[in-house]
Amino acid sequence: MPTPDREAFDALTHPVVVVVGGGFAGLELVKRLAGKRYKVVLLDRNNYHCFQPLLYQVATGSLGADNIAHPFRRTVGPMPNVMFRMGRVLQVMPAEQCVVTDRGIVPYDHLVIATGTVTNFFGNRQVEQEAMQLKSIGQALDIRSDLLQELEAALYTPDEKEQRALLNFVIVGGGPSGVEMAGALAEIRRTIVRHEYREVEPARMRIHLVDSNDEVLGNFSPKVRALALRYLRELGVEVKLGVMVTGYDGRTVTFKDGTSMESRTVIWTAGVKGDPLPGLEPATEPRSGRIRVDSCNRVQGIPNVYALGDVALDSSDPAWPKGHPQVAPVAIQQARQLAANLLRPPGGAWQPFRYKDKGSMATVGRHMAVVDIGRVKFGGAIAWFMWLFVHLMSIVGFRSRVMVLTHWAWKYLSWKNSIRLIIRPYVRHADGSGADAPRA
Amino acid sequence: MPTPDREAFDALTHPVVVVVGGGFAGLELVKRLAGKRYKVVLLDRNNYHCFQPLLYQVATGSLGADNIAHPFRRTVGPMPNVMFRMGRVLQVMPAEQCVVTDRGIVPYDHLVIATGTVTNFFGNRQVEQEAMQLKSIGQALDIRSDLLQELEAALYTPDEKEQRALLNFVIVGGGPSGVEMAGALAEIRRTIVRHEYREVEPARMRIHLVDSNDEVLGNFSPKVRALALRYLRELGVEVKLGVMVTGYDGRTVTFKDGTSMESRTVIWTAGVKGDPLPGLEPATEPRSGRIRVDSCNRVQGIPNVYALGDVALDSSDPAWPKGHPQVAPVAIQQARQLAANLLRPPGGAWQPFRYKDKGSMATVGRHMAVVDIGRVKFGGAIAWFMWLFVHLMSIVGFRSRVMVLTHWAWKYLSWKNSIRLIIRPYVRHADGSGADAPRA
Repeated sequence: MPTPDREAFDALTHPVVVVVGGGFAGLELVKRLAGKRYKVVLLDRNNYHCFQPLLYQVATGSLGADNIAHPFRRTVGPMPNVMFRMGRVLQVMPAEQCVVTDRGIVPYDHLVIATGTVTNFFGNRQVEQEAMQLKSIGQALDIRSDLLQELEAALYTPDEKEQRALLNFVIVGGGPSGVEMAGALAEIRRTIVRHEYREVEPARMRIHLVDSNDEVLGNFSPKVRALALRYLRELGVEVKLGVMVTGYDGRTVTFKDGTSMESRTVIWTAGVKGDPLPGLEPATEPRSGRIRVDSCNRVQGIPNVYALGDVALDSSDPAWPKGHPQVAPVAIQQARQLAANLLRPPGGAWQPFRYKDKGSMATVGRHMAVVDIGRVKFGGAIAWFMWLFVHLMSIVGFRSRVMVLTHWAWKYLSWKNSIRLIIRPYVRHADGSGADAPRA
Repeated sequence: MPTPDREAFDALTHPVVVVVGGGFAGLELVKRLAGKRYKVVLLDRNNYHCFQPLLYQVATGSLGADNIAHPFRRTVGPMPNVMFRMGRVLQVMPAEQCVVTDRGIVPYDHLVIATGTVTNFFGNRQVEQEAMQLKSIGQALDIRSDLLQELEAALYTPDEKEQRALLNFVIVGGGPSGVEMAGALAEIRRTIVRHEYREVEPARMRIHLVDSNDEVLGNFSPKVRALALRYLRELGVEVKLGVMVTGYDGRTVTFKDGTSMESRTVIWTAGVKGDPLPGLEPATEPRSGRIRVDSCNRVQGIPNVYALGDVALDSSDPAWPKGHPQVAPVAIQQARQLAANLLRPPGGAWQPFRYKDKGSMATVGRHMAVVDIGRVKFGGAIAWFMWLFVHLMSIVGFRSRVMVLTHWAWKYLSWKNSIRLIIRPYVRHADGSGADAPRA
């Protein structure tokens, strides 16, 4: 027996827009269509939007999961023409104009794919099995627990070789995620480890940032790249460039040049690939997993289907022949353009998407960030405060902004990451007692 | 190669106090012995102290885990004579004066058992397997995810019987935990469900509070018990008294009178038992799991071993012939008395523990709490603000207090629990993609 509310939604005779994925692109599109002449169904496998640029701060205990995750229902709750559905899309059926989900079949008039990316291991199954990733809240919490457990375990082992392996952290990939993660770990060494794990020599904890290219932050300008490298080295991160990881069995990392290294923690941030959906194969580029779209984000050859953000590949813009960068501003701007096109007056022509590049920034450590906006390229404390401000203002929800600001102010004054909790899946013991079991 | 810090600790010639469990009693004792003429080793299976009285707020999304969990190292870090060790005690060997842990053997001169309690299912293995508990951070997060998943699933099922079962919440046990949990669920129905799960009829969500006794809050005074019952009923909690749960198979709860009820969520708060340690059997009462101690908290018949807090059973106090209530103030006061005894001047006589009962309080919902202090017994908004204040000031760490206050102020003004995230153990899929998988 549907409630009056459900009946009101069902009674709407507008065309149905199904949005798959509530990341930057999907959520922006939903907001733009709120209260307009469409029925919108937002599908996501999680019940919250995740602010991915700050995942590394959850992984390193500066922020809690709830600071960067925002329940979808809080956003769409007040929107009369929007319905949220938590579920996984199994198959798109363009001929039938519907998507098959693990919660049932959802018919559409317009389908928007905004599924983003997953970690790309470039086919290396062994590394995929053993390395940690940083693409979701669950993965970030997993890294946090793991990292803290390695530090605890290092204090208790009498074996020096094992202790060194436990304290050897390897981050693969010199993009913003890898750089930020490496910097955050270096700060943990200089603050937490020095003051609260005093039985271990801080110098024995080593942080390696490995990239197969010859530079970190490959998409930034040369000046900014050099600056980031200098900051990393000042913090004591051992940056290994032009080095390719070929394997990791959970204990030993092997490199292409034949060398190897013992490590219990390898975090892989070396690449992403689109997370396309079964049924869209004709438009999907197999290598990158991205879905080919025209300049209006219409999926090539499949009517009434659109792709937005990281998963979309629009090579029609002469400035970006290999497609736009896979960053939040592209996703948000594409969503706005698609909303405008969907809302155009009858007979109005679709306007193509034009990316307005507002520049890039990345942070390495306290007072160490880089900003790369057109001709303005600089680093240091002002860049760092700019980074904080821009990220703070981008977080969904006023409450989350206040909480993040409080956490950051606290950390700035105390020099400590405060959320250092090892929380693992609850395990019930054979003797009937329960505990949050640390992973062995 | 130990660091100078470790060497300084090892060089101390003071007697070694090993404290097992960093709850209210253990942590208080450690603080009292900081900087004194003992070497202290704090052992806990988690790396954080948990403020248990607010676990139900984590389970219902009002607070985050990091608001009520405080890393031990942050507390003991600055204490030169205290060392923290994360691990599980497997066996006490009183004859050898050592404890066996999963991290190795720790010798002691004095051993303090402060392990608290675990959920008591009174031997019902089936209920133990299927019901949820509320004694740890992991369990609270598990309840949060489960509860939100039931709400999501209820929207999608076409089967009315199944929907009613998904929305039928059963809390067993009318003590403070059960009352607070039931009240919090009733508030979720009236706020979140009404506004953000609008496709479901709020009245279809039902909250049952079941107790085999004839009253809720059995340890409180009759006036306060009646008041709490009135508040629960005002909030629409269906209180079933004198009713005993005999079974739960994950779908159907059965009662002793032969009736039954469909429910996907049963939360068991009907009892606790001591969490004693192997090796202390001669002093452990089998039924309650509590360790018999004298009026100075010395374990009966086992020299140099002490028990504090919920796990200790001191029946020497004429006012409490069945032992003291298993509440935080007893634990903290016992720890203070034991510290004073351990720190007495040479030849000084041990002073027995005397419990100063400062009263009890419990909260049901917004502006609905009860206070029971000697002859002062009242409820309502003032009691509720008193409850908030007392709990806020008891939380470890100034930062956590600020954060909890912010969360509470936010909730008070917005009428919403904000931390509504379904986060389940990270699961890797066969296809290589990863996701935070909702439990089926």
